[in-house]
Amino acid sequence: MTTTGELRVIPLHVHGEVRRGDSIVEKLLASAESQGLELVGGDILVVTHKIVSKAEGAVVRLDQVRPSTSSRRWAKRYALDARVVELGLSQARRVVRRKGGVLITETQHGFVCANSGVDVSNVDGGMSAVLLPRDPDRSAASLHREIKRRLGISVPVIIADTFGRPWREGLTEVAVGVAGMQVFRDFRTQRDQHGYRLKATLESVADELACAAGLVCGKLSGTPAAIVGGFSYTPGRGRAKQLIRPAKRDLFR
Amino acid sequence: MTTTGELRVIPLHVHGEVRRGDSIVEKLLASAESQGLELVGGDILVVTHKIVSKAEGAVVRLDQVRPSTSSRRWAKRYALDARVVELGLSQARRVVRRKGGVLITETQHGFVCANSGVDVSNVDGGMSAVLLPRDPDRSAASLHREIKRRLGISVPVIIADTFGRPWREGLTEVAVGVAGMQVFRDFRTQRDQHGYRLKATLESVADELACAAGLVCGKLSGTPAAIVGGFSYTPGRGRAKQLIRPAKRDLFR
Repeated sequence: MTTTGELRVIPLHVHGEVRRGDSIVEKLLASAESQGLELVGGDILVVTHKIVSKAEGAVVRLDQVRPSTSSRRWAKRYALDARVVELGLSQARRVVRRKGGVLITETQHGFVCANSGVDVSNVDGGMSAVLLPRDPDRSAASLHREIKRRLGISVPVIIADTFGRPWREGLTEVAVGVAGMQVFRDFRTQRDQHGYRLKATLESVADELACAAGLVCGKLSGTPAAIVGGFSYTPGRGRAKQLIRPAKRDLFR
Repeated sequence: MTTTGELRVIPLHVHGEVRRGDSIVEKLLASAESQGLELVGGDILVVTHKIVSKAEGAVVRLDQVRPSTSSRRWAKRYALDARVVELGLSQARRVVRRKGGVLITETQHGFVCANSGVDVSNVDGGMSAVLLPRDPDRSAASLHREIKRRLGISVPVIIADTFGRPWREGLTEVAVGVAGMQVFRDFRTQRDQHGYRLKATLESVADELACAAGLVCGKLSGTPAAIVGGFSYTPGRGRAKQLIRPAKRDLFR
């Protein structure tokens, strides 16, 4: 039984590796079919960035990276891989903090995260690193279009990555690419049940959807995507770029 | 049909106001029953902090607040309510940033958020403000115990609030109180499918569950709680306090 207003988050398993040039949509739809699922109108597809990066070839062999003396020193001091540090710096347009082995950067897209999102897990056992997609909003738009072409329906797509945050321990998922829906739910001009005008309530539903999907997308289990059903999103041209606070309005950069 | 690994997030509607001394558990169970739902083993209950604060009497009439000269000046400059500013400061143990009408504080619990979490929406139309519960982990433990007493099952409880964050626009839900489950999913000692040892992957599932619930808990619709089913949480004595990064290890305080 589906209860009114119920949200459903369904993991999509993918067998085998995603390789450069693969169609992620084809793989995910095949996977859904084999699980007896189908994407329907109203669904949202959340995809972890890693398979998008892999399909786009945003993967770097670590033996091709020549770390600078400074990266080598820093890496040695904190028992890190100098090549991964070098890659992180190469993907940054600015270092936000660098302390105690933690490197927080602003990526070329504007995201603030650890080591520019460069990641060695779930790739090939430590030989290569995955970068963030070059333009994740564009990647999301491309997946969105491909679903429309194949199924004839408009399914919003969210590309998610796992970021840390200040003040709180533990990582959570965030949206790094979005297509087909608004990223915010905007209560700012509405009134609550008591007639009080809501002030600062701009809810980042794209990030919350990424988190909901993160609960079912294991880091270990070959589950790089999820279908979210039952969320009444607002269709539109939302982009994850809107989630980036401009540096000049940010109190913590 | 429920698919393997599927997560379900079901909104719980509550009619009428929550008042000091009310049993939230009683209200929520009655609401569930009227919706044809029941809490079962494996479910998690997510409750927005506001009804917890109201039941605990953590509500302050604004006409009882005497703002200081400094609060009055600051409020006037940015068209804020000086009494709300004063309350925010009174709930803080430290001001983290104060700029452009935004006041980011460290609350007495250690949470870093805007105006110490003091909130005037969804209370009584602007006459009173709701504070965070005095000890939200304790509040969660108390709700957890009451469910056990009434239903004989152990249902983890998460108390959620809506916080902003640096670097990203929009608010998301976070866990401010937890009982009955671990707050983290810990991949740090595990290996991925390629045998690569995962390094920094401590996932804050409590916050992700709060976000998932946030998607169905409207700011406007009298839906102050949600049941999450299908998440394989780890039972235990997790507390939201564990989600607070100690100031000395925080790069942004």
